[in-house]
Amino acid sequence: MLDKIQIVKPAEIEKRSMEIITSELNGRTWPEPEFSIVKRCIHTSADFDYADNLCFSENAANIGVEALKNGAHIVTDTRMAWSGINKKKLASFGGEAHCFMSDEDVAKEAKERGCTRAAICMERGAALAEKENVIFAIGNAPTALIRLYELIKEGKLNPALIIGAPVGFVNVVESKELIMEAGVPFIVPKGRKGGSNIAATICNAMLYQL
Amino acid sequence: MLDKIQIVKPAEIEKRSMEIITSELNGRTWPEPEFSIVKRCIHTSADFDYADNLCFSENAANIGVEALKNGAHIVTDTRMAWSGINKKKLASFGGEAHCFMSDEDVAKEAKERGCTRAAICMERGAALAEKENVIFAIGNAPTALIRLYELIKEGKLNPALIIGAPVGFVNVVESKELIMEAGVPFIVPKGRKGGSNIAATICNAMLYQL
Repeated sequence: MLDKIQIVKPAEIEKRSMEIITSELNGRTWPEPEFSIVKRCIHTSADFDYADNLCFSENAANIGVEALKNGAHIVTDTRMAWSGINKKKLASFGGEAHCFMSDEDVAKEAKERGCTRAAICMERGAALAEKENVIFAIGNAPTALIRLYELIKEGKLNPALIIGAPVGFVNVVESKELIMEAGVPFIVPKGRKGGSNIAATICNAMLYQL
Repeated sequence: MLDKIQIVKPAEIEKRSMEIITSELNGRTWPEPEFSIVKRCIHTSADFDYADNLCFSENAANIGVEALKNGAHIVTDTRMAWSGINKKKLASFGGEAHCFMSDEDVAKEAKERGCTRAAICMERGAALAEKENVIFAIGNAPTALIRLYELIKEGKLNPALIIGAPVGFVNVVESKELIMEAGVPFIVPKGRKGGSNIAATICNAMLYQL
């Protein structure tokens, strides 16, 4: 059985994977750094739908890379997305990744105000964005995107970039359409697909440009 | 724009999502708890391929549920999978989730022995399995599955269950086929797809049966 396993050095595996993805994209290309983001989303999910569903506002990927280069922080809506981000690389440019979801006072405030924890976390992120350049990487909660939209429209938030990648069946498609109309740079896998893994991998794809 | 958002209570969202998934499965069903696992994988990824690719060895899902009920520990190969597991629920039955990937001595030993960190982590998991009932939840590394196969064949490991869900393009398909021949209970999304999110959600789907 073991003879079916190819002997590939760990460092070679990613290179080989990217070659296979590029080959199976049958000549489809994107300008960089968008192409790297498309490939890395496929690498993370083995799902070629990301070649069709990823939407970028004008120059969004370059804006994200530039922000990270200048020490942008990243705010996520899940511990999983937070875990997936290459925080060492992020820190080497001065940035930090934040997830406020497990904070006790977030749960308390959400209960008191009758909204989701994710919505409260976005307000914490907006407060951080008053001092720092902030990228929001959303992999789960449509309510996070909705609250970000409201904060932007109320003039309380001007994020560097929003990665809008909730996954699921209720309000997911609608929340993504909303954030694509907010007037800020975005990267969004249109439709139902996304997830914490996708949100994290988009951050990493931009970091690996540096 | 906001008027397109449905007002759904957080607790209702999951219920509504599962109804949509069931409806779009067009009458396809599985015995429980397999059905819950299939639905939760689709819920996590919005990818209906999981209805076709999930493979269960005989009675595997029941074996997993029973193990968790009796306090089984879970060993993962990524911090992301570890993050996604409902550790509060797991702990309520006496179990604990472990990921040894960031341990300093793991990196050191992997370098010395010229193998992957994931392979070393599986040996740590096997050592734990001498004292505890252990479920392995693999969402990333084919080399983790390969090492588990070797340990089983060497008579050094008898796990409660292996969730074999690496994702990707190099050795992923082959490592899954290997683990399905190891002679132990398994849950495997056959083919290239999987991921830390899938490994975690399979654990949670079993926990939520309890």
